[in-house]
Order: sequence, then structure tokens, then C-alpha cells
Amino acid sequence: MRYSQILIPTLREDPAEAEVASHRLMMRAGMIRKLAAGIYATLPLGQRVMQKTAQIVREEMNRAGGQEVFLPFVQPAELWIESGRWEVYGKEMLRIKDRSDRQFCLGPTHEEVITDIVRATVNSYRQLPINLYQIHIKFRDEIRPRFGMMRAREFIMKDAYSFDIDEQGAEESYRKMQEAYSRIFNRLGLKFRAVEADTGPIGGNFSHEFMVLADTGEDIIVTCTGCEYAANTEKAEIAQPAAKPVDSAVFKELMRVQTPNMRTIQEVAGFLNIEPKDLIKTLVFTSPQGPVVALVRGDHDINEVKLRNYLKCETLELADEDGIEKITGAPRGFAGPTGMKTVRMVADFGLQGCCNMVTGGNERDVHVKNVNFERDFPVSEFADIRSAQAGDMCPRCGKTLATTRGIEVGHIFKLGTKYSTAMNCSYLDQQGKPQPMIMGCYGIGVGRTVAAAIEQSHDENGIIFPESIAPFAVIVVPVNTNDAAQMDIALNLYNGLAAQGLEVLLDDRDERPGSKFKDADLIGIPLRVIVGKNAVEKNQVDIKERRGGDMRQVAICDAVAVIARRLKHPEL
Amino acid sequence: MRYSQILIPTLREDPAEAEVASHRLMMRAGMIRKLAAGIYATLPLGQRVMQKTAQIVREEMNRAGGQEVFLPFVQPAELWIESGRWEVYGKEMLRIKDRSDRQFCLGPTHEEVITDIVRATVNSYRQLPINLYQIHIKFRDEIRPRFGMMRAREFIMKDAYSFDIDEQGAEESYRKMQEAYSRIFNRLGLKFRAVEADTGPIGGNFSHEFMVLADTGEDIIVTCTGCEYAANTEKAEIAQPAAKPVDSAVFKELMRVQTPNMRTIQEVAGFLNIEPKDLIKTLVFTSPQGPVVALVRGDHDINEVKLRNYLKCETLELADEDGIEKITGAPRGFAGPTGMKTVRMVADFGLQGCCNMVTGGNERDVHVKNVNFERDFPVSEFADIRSAQAGDMCPRCGKTLATTRGIEVGHIFKLGTKYSTAMNCSYLDQQGKPQPMIMGCYGIGVGRTVAAAIEQSHDENGIIFPESIAPFAVIVVPVNTNDAAQMDIALNLYNGLAAQGLEVLLDDRDERPGSKFKDADLIGIPLRVIVGKNAVEKNQVDIKERRGGDMRQVAICDAVAVIARRLKHPEL
Repeated sequence: MRYSQILIPTLREDPAEAEVASHRLMMRAGMIRKLAAGIYATLPLGQRVMQKTAQIVREEMNRAGGQEVFLPFVQPAELWIESGRWEVYGKEMLRIKDRSDRQFCLGPTHEEVITDIVRATVNSYRQLPINLYQIHIKFRDEIRPRFGMMRAREFIMKDAYSFDIDEQGAEESYRKMQEAYSRIFNRLGLKFRAVEADTGPIGGNFSHEFMVLADTGEDIIVTCTGCEYAANTEKAEIAQPAAKPVDSAVFKELMRVQTPNMRTIQEVAGFLNIEPKDLIKTLVFTSPQGPVVALVRGDHDINEVKLRNYLKCETLELADEDGIEKITGAPRGFAGPTGMKTVRMVADFGLQGCCNMVTGGNERDVHVKNVNFERDFPVSEFADIRSAQAGDMCPRCGKTLATTRGIEVGHIFKLGTKYSTAMNCSYLDQQGKPQPMIMGCYGIGVGRTVAAAIEQSHDENGIIFPESIAPFAVIVVPVNTNDAAQMDIALNLYNGLAAQGLEVLLDDRDERPGSKFKDADLIGIPLRVIVGKNAVEKNQVDIKERRGGDMRQVAICDAVAVIARRLKHPEL
Repeated sequence: MRYSQILIPTLREDPAEAEVASHRLMMRAGMIRKLAAGIYATLPLGQRVMQKTAQIVREEMNRAGGQEVFLPFVQPAELWIESGRWEVYGKEMLRIKDRSDRQFCLGPTHEEVITDIVRATVNSYRQLPINLYQIHIKFRDEIRPRFGMMRAREFIMKDAYSFDIDEQGAEESYRKMQEAYSRIFNRLGLKFRAVEADTGPIGGNFSHEFMVLADTGEDIIVTCTGCEYAANTEKAEIAQPAAKPVDSAVFKELMRVQTPNMRTIQEVAGFLNIEPKDLIKTLVFTSPQGPVVALVRGDHDINEVKLRNYLKCETLELADEDGIEKITGAPRGFAGPTGMKTVRMVADFGLQGCCNMVTGGNERDVHVKNVNFERDFPVSEFADIRSAQAGDMCPRCGKTLATTRGIEVGHIFKLGTKYSTAMNCSYLDQQGKPQPMIMGCYGIGVGRTVAAAIEQSHDENGIIFPESIAPFAVIVVPVNTNDAAQMDIALNLYNGLAAQGLEVLLDDRDERPGSKFKDADLIGIPLRVIVGKNAVEKNQVDIKERRGGDMRQVAICDAVAVIARRLKHPEL
């Protein structure tokens, strides 16, 4: 294709609203254009990348036995009422009435629709298992859409749903998707990690997230340096440390100290000249079960997801100023476990064996020194309720955990019978008895995957596309399009490469060479062929690798073969 | 693929709500499933057909220089306000507010969005022409969605938009699309006709519809038996007949006659024992220009679109009972041209030269006989305002017109500067002067095209798919899956055909042969290979053509080669 005949409105300047690299570069490379907050048009260059990405997803879904369908985007409310989610799904679901005043929503996800289809069309155990998927838009009315395609309101997703007759089958379906996802992200040329994740509001038994590793990722991933264990920090377990015997002989005398206006761990530690790890952080939560106090070591972070899962409650929120005062008798910043005997108190494993700690005194501007478990307050529960950090112990093998950053691009869930029971999606077993189907659901954000690929692979000059999703494999740049000899050579190369089945872009624009090179870098084409004076005078062209920048001179007569070999057999 | 592993929920009975063949057969073949009025899920078999259809459209759009994009489905109101269509677009456009109370609509079409993108990214004549297209869902809240995919509310459309610097360029862009559409519908294996059409509310200079010919079509197409002229009846012109001299000597005396309760042409003609062609049909319309009376011969039909275009008014409606009474002084059914001198009156060309006609008497239960133009009432205007019928004269060559029925599957418009002027979408010409771009827009209903293909090609047993969009090319049916020898042969054939790159379906279900043959007919696979006793005993299989039903016996060892040749080179 000729550059002059494709709309690639590159920008020289970074768009003001773009906070992350992928957003900035997709805008600058003319791949996308914003129409409204979180709503983007995909322009020709972006569409090529999106389609290649979607096609790899499609091929691997088909290979794993998935059957492609296409589900309505505008969904009747009845189905959501039946599943029980019409009331509980928040404002991210945009509700709408049609001209006859019937309620619909713009599909934020498709569990209800697919369950409705399967219950109506699948009756017998002989028709199972089945895995249906689609690649289609979703709409989630995010309160703060941001980062371009990374967290858009309207976005393309591959969502698959599996239906099985029993747990064993469901686990097999789940495993197949896990493998398919690994193949997908490998083919996309991404460095990624499948990590254990919290199931969140989708519910179900367990789930994995597929994380593209990138320093700019919003998620923190915990990985073991010794074994395969990896998890989202939300979910990451920490091995319970061996019980340290506490010798009460070392307990010092309890002492109340004035700490005027010292509220944070940092402030108190600095004021008392101690380390954060010598403090007990005391957090007051409200839950459907009543108030709960959580204790973690001053240098640790509470993990609300783990605490909520431990408490087995649906919601959990930090208490507000009033709530804190009601429980502790003091303003925020001075809470401590002493004198709060009537409240359920959960301490993190990390506090086991700690002694002579500092905590809030449950009185304004007062902390307490030399606080000791049991002697000064009772704790009936120790649990794993803090976020894992680099250096923590792996729950599987006991080796050291490390942390890294990632972008969630896929998420697989074992749903169990949550939807099939609510919506009566059952099959007749071999005895002719109805049984609920066991479901799984599996998503990949197609646009987000493209954005993540760019986050992982770019430099100061622009995008460096993985070859599997690059919009073109090679760009031929005649330095001076007014030089007939150069243009002639460039055209011959262009035709020769196209005849090899390669996707070639010919930069036939009458622009300064510097400007053309800048654009070629920006849009991230893996190989660049430069046709300049040397081509005319010495029969040589330069071939430049976008990744790494390696440049080599090749005789014109060899160029097509060299490039074809390089692109078709990058391993050679 | 194995039949047992693909969800094809065929139905034995016709679904009650399905009025037309394509709707009935797509439901019965398990291609689609209704979720709400005019909202359908596409199941695996249907999805294969839709994707093949879309892919042919995509390839031909690319070949014609189109660039694929992907535009937001949820569109901000601002753009529609700017184009002036927010207020005038009717209830088919579903409007919606997001969580921040901003107005959006579900895209019924994308002129506004694409114009916004092009005005922001294209500035110079050097970047033009450009043709951008997408294949994506639209939503039109039809008051009466019906006929399944034929008139759904949510549906897939290919919509393309061209931008040119001048009329000549715009015409060239239009012509390219016209050619691309012909290639598309030819590749889809459809009998179709491109016809001149009315531009309707999209506006613009002129347009063509692409009609798939089918007896069940909603549209009537007029074609010339002598030349290439073809048009939708809405638009079809009729040659003005040669002026017939009227000899006033034959005029009879005007006579009022009692016609109690005789209102329609049929009633009056029967009562007075005359032919409908001896009557003048008198229709009262209201328009922004005031009331208009139209006269056509009793055996002709008024064509409101032609009348509206002739009058150059935006709206035109038949007057209600009150309006008629106000103009004619009589209830509906008794209007006539005599005594209505103050109203604008347009007579159809077909009335020229008629004399001694019967019309209403502008009085309840009264008609008038022997009415003659000029003598009894003045008509200043004759025009082509009736619908063409078979037997009328071609406006181009004067030969006879014929009529046939069709289904509109594509529509191309020359828009001119309607949107580019309203939305200030301009380019700088060679002199650096801003000029509005000249636009065209071009649609193909992908789902409707599939439905039309089925309307055109089916029999009492089911669908007969054109080979280019058949979900599978060939189905291998072992008569008895419990017969190991039969299954062995069937599997070998299945593998052999797949190795030829053919899309094969193996009906491995343990069902009665009759039931499997019925399903194979219903889902319309072009070739069927029957592996029965003969296969085991005589090394022979039967190959049956879905279209026409030809059956031939082939030695098993030749079967793969015979089928591959038949499918890859159907012309041999």
C-alpha cells in the first residue's frame, strides 16, 4: 500500500490528555481518534493492528474448540432481572428504554445472554461441553475513562463462555482456555504472566489474570523467585511465618506518650525515633457483619480484598471519621487495639512474635509504647490480610517473592453454577435428571492488548510493534520521491516484496526524508528499507531494524530475498 | 468440523412469528436466535455465513481503494446537532444519556462521525480522494421490526464514505463503488440488479439501490425490456406519451349521478358499469406549500415520492377526512376536479387525451360523468406522478417496461456537500483556498444480504446456499455411526477433504439417517457425501448436489478428488 493512499494522521506533539505511553503513541501514530470521553474511532493503521490481534485470538479460540457467535449489544433487561444483576450492577451498565418504553442495557458483559441461548438450545449431556465466544464491542460507563484504549468506555472484547456437565469437565475447559491464552499472548509477541486473581463481582470459584509485564502497568504482580507461583497483589498469599516464641520477660512497661498531631505511621515513627516496623497499624472497617478492626505491621499494607475474602463478606469499607470515633473514642490517626475488646479484631500474620510495639492510644494526640499481644489486648484471630511485598515468603515453596508491574489483558473465571442456577440453565444427565451446567467465562480486551503491547515495546521515537501485529511488515522509503531513479528502485522493491506475500508500505509522499523517517519510527514498522543516493550510485539499499536499530547495507538485487528471509524466518 | 461439536439447534417446525422464507429458514437451520423484537444472536452456523459474506465485502472494498476503520457505536449528540439531524431524525434513533447526563445516540448511521474525523485529519487536496469504510453494528429502533435479519433493529452493515475535491472525482468514487458492489453481489452468487432510487432522508444528488431479485421482495423494480434502464418503482420514470389530439366534438354532456356509498374506484366502476381507466382518481394532499390535488387515471397508482420530488417539498401527506372535506366540500370518496379552482392541481401524463371521464362530484354520494379537461376544469400542470407498471413505456428507449420484485441489499448515494458544508469539512485547494469536500456514502446490509440470498435460493426442504457463503462446502454423512466400517470410511473422507483445504462437516451424530439428511438439506450445504452400505460392500459413496438434487455414485478412492474438483472448479 502507498502511504499517500492511507490515512495516517501522525502528530508531532504529544496530545495533552494522554498520560501513558500507549495512549500518547496510538494518538500520535494516527491509530485512533477520540470522539468523546472513553470513546474512540479506530483509524486505518489502528484497524490493521486490531484486526491482526483479533485474528490471532480467533484462530487460537477455534483451535481450542471455541465456536464463534455474535451476540446482541443491546440486551433486554428481563435477562438481567432473572440473573439478579439488574439491581446490583452499578452505573457502569448504561440502561436505556426503546421507543416502546421497554428496558434494555448496553452490554457490559454477556453472561446473561449466552446463558439464555444455551438453556434454549442445549438439553442433553451429549451436547456438552460447549464453548461459545464472540469478538464484539462492550460498553462500560466508567466513571473515569482514561489511558486511551486501555480503559475506554466502548471497547472490543473477546468473551468466551464454557458449559460443562461436571466439575472435572469445567476444570478441563478452564485449562484449555488457560493454554489457549498462553498461545495467544505468545503469538502476539508479549512478555506476560498468568497470575492467580480475585474473582471480584463476576463471582465464581477461582480465576487467573493474564498480565502483560510493563513498568507502566496499573497492577502489581507478585512472583516467586523459586517456583511458578504468581498472583495479583490483590490475591497473592504470603506464607505464614514459623511461630516465633515470645518471651514475656522482654516485655517492657506500657507507656502512654503525647504525640501531638502525629497521625501517620511516618509521622509517629519520626517523632518517636523508631522504625515503621515497630508500629501496629490499626484500621477500622465497616462490614455487613458490623465493625471490624484490622491490625498490620507499620511497614505493611492492609489488603482489603484478602480481608474481605477472609471475613467472607460482600462489602467492606474503611470507616469514616464518625465510625472511627465511635469505635475508638478518638479521631482518625490515634486508633489502637488496646481498650477495644468488644470489636472483632483480626491481626496479620506479620505481627506474630512482635513485642513492645507502638500503637494509637484511642485518645487524641496520644500513642502507647511497649504494647504486647495478650498482655495488653486479646487477639483471637491471626490471618493473611496484608499485601505481599518483594522479599516476602512464597506460600507454595517458601522461597522469596518478587514484585513486578503488569497490565491485565485477559481474565479467566471458573463461574460454577452462579448463572446456570439463577437462570435455570440445565441439561439432562444420563439418567434423564436435570442438572445445572457448570460455567466458565474468559475475556480478552483486544484494544487493551494492543495498548499493552505498545506499553511493553516502545522507545522515545515511537512504537516498536511485535511482528505478528505490526500494521505492515516493512516500509520502503525513497529518500527523494522527485528522483525518478530512486522511485523506480523503490517501486521495484515494493512490488517484489508484495509478490512475496509481505505487507509493504511505500512512503511515496513528497516530504523531507527526516519527516518520513520520523513517521516510520513512530508507527513502528519492524523493517525499513531506505532507497537513497547509494541505491542509484552503488546499487545498495539500507535495511534498518526498528527494534534495536541495526542497519545493514544490501545489494538491491538481494534485498527482496534478504527481507523475506528475515521476516518469514526471524529465527535464522 | 464434527456436527456433534458445533451448536446447530435445528427446528422441525416453522417458528410461528416467521413470515418470510429467510426468517423461517434461518431460525429452523439454527443460524440465529431471537433475543428481543428485532434483536438477534447469530449462532455458529450463521456466524460462518455472516463472516464469509463480510469477508467478500471487505476484499472488494479494499480492492476498490477503501480503507477499513472502526467507528464508535455510541455517538455524542453534539455531532448530530451540528449536522442538523439531531432534531429531524425520528424515533428510529435511540437517544441515551450517560452517567454524567451527556446526550448520546446509538449510531443508526455514521455520516456525522466520519465527517468529524475527516475534517480533523484531512486538510489538503493532496490527501484526497479518500474512501473509509467499516463493518459494524447499527441500531435503528424500527417501529415494526420484522422478517428476522431482513429488518432487524440491531444489524451489521458495511458503510463506506468517500470524500473528493470536485464533482468529477465524486462521480469517479461513486462509479468505483458501483463496480465494487457488482463484484460483491456477483461473488456472493446472487441474481441482482442495480436500480435508480430515490435519495430519501439521506439527501444528496442521486442514488442507486442494489436489489436481489426474489419473488418475496418488498420492493418492486421496474426494468426495461429493451435497454439497461432499471429503477425502484418509487423512482421509475415513465416516458411521456405522444400528445393525443382531443376532438371536443366527442365531448358528451356533463351529468351528475347518484352513487350511494360508492367510494372506491372498483365500487364506482362496478356500479356504473365502466372500466377503472374511465375514472379520474382525485387525491388531496397537504404539503408545506398548502393543499395539492393530484389526478391519476383510475387504473393507475399515484406515486407520492415522484409527486413530492416534482413539487420539491420535504413532506407530503394524504389529507385526512377533515382536510378533504375542507377542500372538496364532500366526504372522502367523492372528490373530483370540478369546482376546486383555487387549489393547485397536478394531473398525471396518463390522463392526457382522455375524455368523457367519471370523477367525484364533491358532494356525498354523487359522481359526475363525461368530465373533460379544460371544458370542465382547468389543469395547468401535467407531470409524471404515477407509479410505473408492467407495459409502460421506458423513459430512455421507449420500449416496454416490465416489473419484478427485489430486496434492497445495498444503497449508494452521491451526497454532494450536504454534510461537509453543515460540518465545515473542507480542504485547501491548490490555491490554498478552503473548499467543501464532495461526499458519497455507500451501504450494504450484511445480514440482509444473507437473508436475501436465502429468499432467492431455497426450496421446500431448506436453504440452498451459494457456494461462496455456504457455512461448509461439503457434509459427510455416515448412515449408521454405529457401523465401524462406515465410520472409518467417513472419517477417511473427512480427513482427505479437509487436507484439500475444503470446509467439511462430518455428521457424526447417532441419529436416524432420515433426520440427518433432513438437517443437511435444511442447512443448505452444497454437497453431501453419503457413506452407507454401498460404501462398505461396493466401495462406493453417493454424492448429492443440494441444488438440483443430482446424485452420483463414485468409487471411494476417487471421491476426494471428484469433490475437490467439483468445488474448486465448478465451471468444469
